[in-house]
Amino acid sequence: METKELLDGQVSRRGLIKSAAGIAGVAALTMGGLGFLSGAEASKKGSAVLPFPYKKFTAAEIKEAGNIAHDNWFKGFCSFAALSGGVEILRRKVGKPYTSFPMELTTFAHGGTSGWGCTCGTLIGAGVLATLCAGPKTGEAINNEVVNFYATEALPIFVPDHPRADLKTQSVSNSPLCHLSVGKWMKKEGVGFLSPQQMDRCGRVAADMCMKTLELLNLLADVYFEPKTKAPVFANEIPSQNNCTECHGPDIPKTSGKFGTGLDLLKGGH
Amino acid sequence: METKELLDGQVSRRGLIKSAAGIAGVAALTMGGLGFLSGAEASKKGSAVLPFPYKKFTAAEIKEAGNIAHDNWFKGFCSFAALSGGVEILRRKVGKPYTSFPMELTTFAHGGTSGWGCTCGTLIGAGVLATLCAGPKTGEAINNEVVNFYATEALPIFVPDHPRADLKTQSVSNSPLCHLSVGKWMKKEGVGFLSPQQMDRCGRVAADMCMKTLELLNLLADVYFEPKTKAPVFANEIPSQNNCTECHGPDIPKTSGKFGTGLDLLKGGH
Repeated sequence: METKELLDGQVSRRGLIKSAAGIAGVAALTMGGLGFLSGAEASKKGSAVLPFPYKKFTAAEIKEAGNIAHDNWFKGFCSFAALSGGVEILRRKVGKPYTSFPMELTTFAHGGTSGWGCTCGTLIGAGVLATLCAGPKTGEAINNEVVNFYATEALPIFVPDHPRADLKTQSVSNSPLCHLSVGKWMKKEGVGFLSPQQMDRCGRVAADMCMKTLELLNLLADVYFEPKTKAPVFANEIPSQNNCTECHGPDIPKTSGKFGTGLDLLKGGH
Repeated sequence: METKELLDGQVSRRGLIKSAAGIAGVAALTMGGLGFLSGAEASKKGSAVLPFPYKKFTAAEIKEAGNIAHDNWFKGFCSFAALSGGVEILRRKVGKPYTSFPMELTTFAHGGTSGWGCTCGTLIGAGVLATLCAGPKTGEAINNEVVNFYATEALPIFVPDHPRADLKTQSVSNSPLCHLSVGKWMKKEGVGFLSPQQMDRCGRVAADMCMKTLELLNLLADVYFEPKTKAPVFANEIPSQNNCTECHGPDIPKTSGKFGTGLDLLKGGH
């Protein structure tokens, strides 16, 4: 069976997902076989099995999720905010199993994982939200789009109903890293870390990632979500961002040749 | 109330956690008030509320968790591996609510978050494991220690019962980033991405992070877990790693002064 066909069959439980580069990337990594249950098996197993039921959000509900996310930043920071913005409404709309899901479980991911400046916590919360509602494989395809959105758009976009600070600027991070994203924004805004402006900005970014995830889950529910972003792990033959020169300068290590040979596993015979 | 006292009261539900720099850092970020429930409230709410019950692992069980994590890398990659290594045994030892917890929900975090090379997925899976068993605040304190362990030790350490490849080398990443960690190790080992060696190495690293997390959860159960690592967000006044020159070269931006002023919020009156 072709990898593409295999993946289409596995991923498209909840809608038609056309094969695209991002999906092909995921497919390539699933050679070993992800041991997840089918939808039929899932229904027998209760809340241990993904995906949970999803009901489309209205435009008003997506905006409400953004406001909840922004408010919740001040209760549990960025990862909790992005996840809880969606889950609070799903608890109301769907009920179980969201009501028994511990939505504080990625709170540690704030500040780029316990403050280490790596993956922006909003993307971890948003990734869990996508995975809860779409399962691990489609959830990852959605998260890949959201990460690309995070790295390429001028943020924050969302204007909450109850801002805690007035913000002057948006900035493009070119990276999913908390350190680069918040650092570039603070420099452009002219404020420091833990300033009211920085905290409000990160609350708004949490809203942006929550809302983007819900928009893609809505597309999936409508059967026309189509992944468009090639995961950098395949573009660059190593897990990576696409802003290579920002750390490496002009001396970017080659990924083809000796240290790219691993990918030959995928090119031959699959 | 002093920030330190406030936090000691909130964090030490399951054991004596002496105030340390890492904890002080967490405390500082909780100014806004994390809206989590108390232990008494938790018992009424079922599986939506953290922490779940924890029972100490024996040395044999920790080793078994490592072997499960290593094996599970080949089913769902690094984040799933680090989380499921602990949860599979907790399902057997404790039962509910672990049996109804969807342990595939951070699978997307592999490859440094959907393949973007940021936070190593093992640290996301391990952070969720710590949070499930110790709650959001103590879970983060544990995760901060595990991230520091990841960044400073020569990895992988664990030798699984059923290795898929023979490995020659260990390497120190100096970073929690997937891209730097796996890149440095592949260069030292002389292999490529998705080579059998790289995949086995990442499975072993997942075991290492799962096991380190369980060791710290055991210490917490024994009432002598003491955080020792200052979260870089406070050491550097911005979410960050500690390998500044690896990306910045000698031109490291100052964090005191204009762009560090946010921390003055914490120094005055709290």
